[in-house]
Order: sequence, then structure tokens, then C-alpha cells
Amino acid sequence: MQEKKAIVLVSGGLDSATVLAMAKAAGFGCYSLSFDYGQRHRAELNAARHTAEVLGASEHKVVTLDLRSIGGSALTDDNIAVPERETEGIPVTYVPARNTVMLAIALGWAEVVGARDIFIGVNAVDYSGYPDCRPEYIEAFEKVANLATRAGVEGQRTHIRAPLIALSKADIIRRGMDLGVDYSLTVSCYQANQAGEACGKCESCRLRRAGFAEAGVPDPTRYC
Amino acid sequence: MQEKKAIVLVSGGLDSATVLAMAKAAGFGCYSLSFDYGQRHRAELNAARHTAEVLGASEHKVVTLDLRSIGGSALTDDNIAVPERETEGIPVTYVPARNTVMLAIALGWAEVVGARDIFIGVNAVDYSGYPDCRPEYIEAFEKVANLATRAGVEGQRTHIRAPLIALSKADIIRRGMDLGVDYSLTVSCYQANQAGEACGKCESCRLRRAGFAEAGVPDPTRYC
Repeated sequence: MQEKKAIVLVSGGLDSATVLAMAKAAGFGCYSLSFDYGQRHRAELNAARHTAEVLGASEHKVVTLDLRSIGGSALTDDNIAVPERETEGIPVTYVPARNTVMLAIALGWAEVVGARDIFIGVNAVDYSGYPDCRPEYIEAFEKVANLATRAGVEGQRTHIRAPLIALSKADIIRRGMDLGVDYSLTVSCYQANQAGEACGKCESCRLRRAGFAEAGVPDPTRYC
Repeated sequence: MQEKKAIVLVSGGLDSATVLAMAKAAGFGCYSLSFDYGQRHRAELNAARHTAEVLGASEHKVVTLDLRSIGGSALTDDNIAVPERETEGIPVTYVPARNTVMLAIALGWAEVVGARDIFIGVNAVDYSGYPDCRPEYIEAFEKVANLATRAGVEGQRTHIRAPLIALSKADIIRRGMDLGVDYSLTVSCYQANQAGEACGKCESCRLRRAGFAEAGVPDPTRYC
């Protein structure tokens, strides 16, 4: 029997590492995909590669995509600071259309390798208010995926899988611990240093720290 | 009154040059966007820049995106030859998920500049059987655009405009001639040489040549 294949978007963070472990546990041959989109630090790309290796991805690819030339986010424009306290509404760390761009490229790779499943670690509970993390967004993209592609025309459905979408950060951590994910390899911080040490102050750090506390799991994060 | 802005995808070819002229004629301040995605030749990027300048785009941006690392198309993989006669079904020049990737990046730029309209030169008549050129695909992507973005959350609709979708190649050429488009600047060939001269044999050349003939307009293409 032919192995079923999945593209798994991995950022180097906690959520996508958990998703990769879940996809592996579900029996998929995993093709992990990261983006060098001009983010503030390289630590997350290193974390993504390392996590993919440890969790047994069949192949790991880093696609270069210059989102810095578009800007519009604290993560892709050095003139916009990463906020260190909670803000109202959609925060400045929102990267315009990032999930759409990443899912689109994942869709292209899925066609090339013959994968009919794309996993993404979006989450609509302990999240940052990003519009492209909502269930209705994922559904709409799945519809695009099935109209856009050769596979869709040939009647093979592509599924966009977002298994974390309804989980709390603590639940995600518990799920990952059950699957043996080593979270010390992951980097969630928006402004980690070159060594991968976290600031402990940005929203991503705050959500992560609270998640470990709520899950009753010692926080393995290296703070600087 | 504030100028209404549009992102216009320009490839350097005949169709997107016509779309840019149509968007200008409709009163939009046009932000033209091209992709250096590892295509076979640079002539189309030069043609895109030149066309954008002549047609009065407010800004022209080239985003680098390495689709060659994914491959899967005669346009992004040197091991797959561009066919020089008609083929059955979706041809090997189809680049997996290309329009989805390009529309996604256009959507990101639209958010940054505050554009609510994105123009794309897809065509479902004299086209090559690409699935991502169909009206139902464009509709589905528009839905994604409105769920994905900050603007959508704030109740501002984004429109994906595909004004050529129901036109024949001859009609497109007639429309462009009325708007003063200089088609000698455009390059449609899948395998043009460095000087921008067309092969005259690939499907894109064949459709273009037939379009000029049907429109009764002298073909300004430089063939090699």
C-alpha cells in the first residue's frame, strides 16, 4: 500500500511541532515546510529543521519568500516594534495574508509530491486575534484548494487539517507530551536571540508560558 | 478625495498589460506586482517592469519567491520541456498553485497599501486548461480574501477582479488597442530568449498569434 503523504507547515514553534507529531501518529509520511520570509530571527528556522528531523519528517523544505519587501508587520518590518504587553484588536505582529501565502505554497508542494492533506497549526482559542486562524477561513481555503489544482479537477479532494484549532494552549501541550514532543527544541518567541533564547515578554512568550503553567508541565523554554 | 488603489498582477504578457490599462482607465491608482519565481527567462520580468512604467503604475514591485524549489512544471523545472504542440488535459506548463500563491501575496500587499481591489488577467476562454483560471476559483479566492484579512474583519470588502475572464484573445487585444496598449513591449512566450524574442511554437505563442490574426491587428511580436 502506498504511504499517504501530508504537507505539514512547521514554524519552529510549539504548535506546529505538535501538529507534526499528530500527523506522524495518524500515519502520514510528513513533508514539512518552513518559510524564510524575512522574519526577525533565524532561530525559528533552525528550530523548525531540528524538530522536523527529530519527529521523523520524510523531507524538510525551506522556501524563500521575501515578505519583507511587502512589510506591514512587526515581524517583517524593523521599524515596527514587537509589543511587550497586551494590545487591543489585531496586533501589529499580524503578517498580512501570511497563512494564505503559506497554505498556497504548501498546496503547490502537495501537488508535486502527491499529498492530499495539508496540516497547519492554527488555533482559535489561545491565539492572538489573527483573522486567518479562524475555522471559517480554513474552510474557505480548502474550497480554493479543491478548485485551484489539477488534483481537484481530477476529483481527488485536498483537506486542510487544523487539528489544534479548538484546543487551548495547555491542551496542545498535553497532547504533544503524550506524543513525546520535546518542546525544548521549539522557539515561540517573536524576538528570540540568535541562540534561540526567548524574551519572555512578547505575546507569544506569554501565551506559551501560561500554557505550560496550566498544563502542569515544567516550562523547558530557555529565556534570555 | 482619496485615490482608490488596486493591486494589479503583471506578468509581462499581453493579458496582464491589458488588465493594467483597464484598471488605470477605471480610475485606480495601480500597484503592479510581478514575481521572480524562478521562471525560465528574465525577459518577462523586464517586460513587466517596462509595461508598468509606460502604463503609469504608481509603484511596481517584484517579489522573489523560489517556486523552483518546489518544481512540478515545465516553467520551473529545466528537466521538463515546454511542449511545442497542443497537448491533452492540463499541460505541463501548469505551475502548481501559482495563481493562489500570487493572489495571496497580492492580498498581503493590498493590506499594506490599503487597496481593496486586486486585478488578475486570468482568462477562461482562449486559455490553457489551467484550473486556477476559472470563475468559480476566483470567487472562492475572493471569499478567502475577505476572511483572511484585517480589512475583512473590519468590514471592508476586497474584490478579486478578473476582467478578461470571459473574453477571447482577440477581444482582449481589441480592448487593449482601444486603451493604447503597446503590445510590442509584452512577452507571452514560455521560452523567450534573453532579448525577449518569442519561440513562436509554444502554446502561449500560438494563442497570441491567433489572437492578433483574429483581431485583424498586425502582430508586433518579435520572433527569433
